[in-house]
Amino acid sequence: MNTSVYPQSRHLMGPGPSDVHPRVLAAMANPTVSHLDPEFILMMDNLKDMLRYAFQTENELTIPLSGPASVGMESCFVNLIEPDDKVIVCQNGAFGGRMRENVERIGAKAVMVTDDWGCPVDPQKVSDALSCNPDTKAVAFVHAETSTGVQSDAATICAIARQNNALSIVDCVTSLAGSPVLTDKWEADAIYSGSQKCLSCTPGISPLTLSPRAVDVLRNRKKKGQSWFMDLNLLMDYWGEGSSRSYHHTAPINSLYGLHESLTLLQEEGIENAWQRHSSMHLALRHGIEALDLSFLVAENDRLPQLNTICIPDSVNEADVRSYLLSKYNLEVGAGLGILDGKVWRIGVMGQSAKKENIILFLSGLEDALEKQGLRIKKGESVYAAQRALGS
Amino acid sequence: MNTSVYPQSRHLMGPGPSDVHPRVLAAMANPTVSHLDPEFILMMDNLKDMLRYAFQTENELTIPLSGPASVGMESCFVNLIEPDDKVIVCQNGAFGGRMRENVERIGAKAVMVTDDWGCPVDPQKVSDALSCNPDTKAVAFVHAETSTGVQSDAATICAIARQNNALSIVDCVTSLAGSPVLTDKWEADAIYSGSQKCLSCTPGISPLTLSPRAVDVLRNRKKKGQSWFMDLNLLMDYWGEGSSRSYHHTAPINSLYGLHESLTLLQEEGIENAWQRHSSMHLALRHGIEALDLSFLVAENDRLPQLNTICIPDSVNEADVRSYLLSKYNLEVGAGLGILDGKVWRIGVMGQSAKKENIILFLSGLEDALEKQGLRIKKGESVYAAQRALGS
Repeated sequence: MNTSVYPQSRHLMGPGPSDVHPRVLAAMANPTVSHLDPEFILMMDNLKDMLRYAFQTENELTIPLSGPASVGMESCFVNLIEPDDKVIVCQNGAFGGRMRENVERIGAKAVMVTDDWGCPVDPQKVSDALSCNPDTKAVAFVHAETSTGVQSDAATICAIARQNNALSIVDCVTSLAGSPVLTDKWEADAIYSGSQKCLSCTPGISPLTLSPRAVDVLRNRKKKGQSWFMDLNLLMDYWGEGSSRSYHHTAPINSLYGLHESLTLLQEEGIENAWQRHSSMHLALRHGIEALDLSFLVAENDRLPQLNTICIPDSVNEADVRSYLLSKYNLEVGAGLGILDGKVWRIGVMGQSAKKENIILFLSGLEDALEKQGLRIKKGESVYAAQRALGS
Repeated sequence: MNTSVYPQSRHLMGPGPSDVHPRVLAAMANPTVSHLDPEFILMMDNLKDMLRYAFQTENELTIPLSGPASVGMESCFVNLIEPDDKVIVCQNGAFGGRMRENVERIGAKAVMVTDDWGCPVDPQKVSDALSCNPDTKAVAFVHAETSTGVQSDAATICAIARQNNALSIVDCVTSLAGSPVLTDKWEADAIYSGSQKCLSCTPGISPLTLSPRAVDVLRNRKKKGQSWFMDLNLLMDYWGEGSSRSYHHTAPINSLYGLHESLTLLQEEGIENAWQRHSSMHLALRHGIEALDLSFLVAENDRLPQLNTICIPDSVNEADVRSYLLSKYNLEVGAGLGILDGKVWRIGVMGQSAKKENIILFLSGLEDALEKQGLRIKKGESVYAAQRALGS
């Protein structure tokens, strides 16, 4: 029984937050200083450099925003899009729908390109939509759909946008640090992410990077953006290289300590190694899932290693399985979101959660939970399959 | 020399953040759980109850927003104000100007009521403006101007608004928990604050409370607000009593642990005792300042106990004094903001910083710094005056 007023420790294998490294938690507890303290200002430069490494970019405007990833998304739209602009919004899951909300609340026009939930964005449809809408200001899409576990071809979609003189706005909330996000190679214009997925930091910070082309658009707006808080022109007077460090808002100092530590951990591991680790753990999970005769929602080549949507077998009460895993194994897995509610579980293998211990615990717990649901399970088979996949 | 990558510990006597209690820092380092974890959901209810105590209200919609106080401010405007609405904005410092920005970016009309920086809002002017503008939707003003150290008469201004069927939107960023914020007694409609001032939590969270009247306005908007992230109608499906706990964004779990602990500390002390402590420490500071023949910007009856603007004597290089205090005493004080830049120091006596040790350290350090600046100082006089004021 947990007698602390704070929740007990969990193994976080849902769609985020993921397990947070003890070093990140310890960093959060460092003494708070002012957002204008000279020592904090030095740390700001380090944060930006380490974020550039995570985003694989040399973009100057690469900063952590003071809010969850929804602030990252909305900041891209309210800064780059003006009323009456036209934006092609690709929707193949829940977060494309949120992008549409953002565009429409600006008073801009969203031209929707839709694909089924569980399928990637079809680049040909994007190309066709641009042909029909040559006045498009930007193409917005989700690289890694957290609601479905699908990865879309960001390199191709960004290139199509660029060939048509449109900006690209890319949601990499679930991909950053878990699978390759290659900002400069893709020539992407605006990418936002979250701290609590594959970076395994605490939730509440949204990393953002804008290309020089996007910065030009930002600098040359016809009118001010609709949000004072998210106005990047104002914010860069605080975060910008050689800026006046003018106060805009009080930065969330301790949360940025946490981000600093998680980015340090990423540097120590090496980002290619982090990508590889996510792939390996996904492979182990996949072999385990297949040994249980369960199936993935997403076709093999389109799967995100870090977010796995597993179809729920008929006769299984999915909420009971999640409750059982939480109460008996301290293990969180995610429910389906939107139209996938009740149809899939979402198994996060993100950041510090992407480790052998978690895969084994999850598979063991799932075997137990499914047996309780009346399924015939060959106990240990899925764990054994995962171990073999990991070469042990 | 600080060899940690994290900044060294400071005594924070600027305009915020203030000193953070070790229990709050320790709370931040508790294990991260999901925003949908049953144990976290229990904590959400506690957080709301404790925020109601801090705001002295029974308002149901009383929640911590996932961003700095600027998010609190902007959330009030984008939720309660629609394009073409008219808002009376009182400006007697920097933050009234920010309110105006918020109103205008919505496409609403700001009718400005201005008073000099360093003076409170004149209720008569508000009343006159309402007579000239009977179609006013809301009156917005700053209870505690962090840029000047002035307190305005919130009870009177809220009453005037109410008598004229206008909502009141009140900035209590610097006042909450430092001097009386009496939401229900004032019949205020919307009050926002920040975590890092007199609550002495880490920065990044904005407490908010809305009256039932304001909630009616929110529920009956003609069109959706311009911000998806700040849409309180959506957010209340997660935070609301008896709500579906629907995912809106991932809550900043660890920052909310910190807020929970700082609100627990406030309950343990008792809010009246906290107000009294801020008054006593202000009085001690005042006696010390007067013993140094320095003067306050603000007339005695209008001063905020927790934010003291001290006029900089001629011949003193104000930035050198601040640097000296930071480097020799690890003590931060604030510069002037906006038109007061170079004219005043801002001395915060907020939350955990409102204690005898800090007052003595500040006065001792200031004596030293002013002597270095060539002023003739009777060493020890200011500390002695403060000690006498404290009855010791």
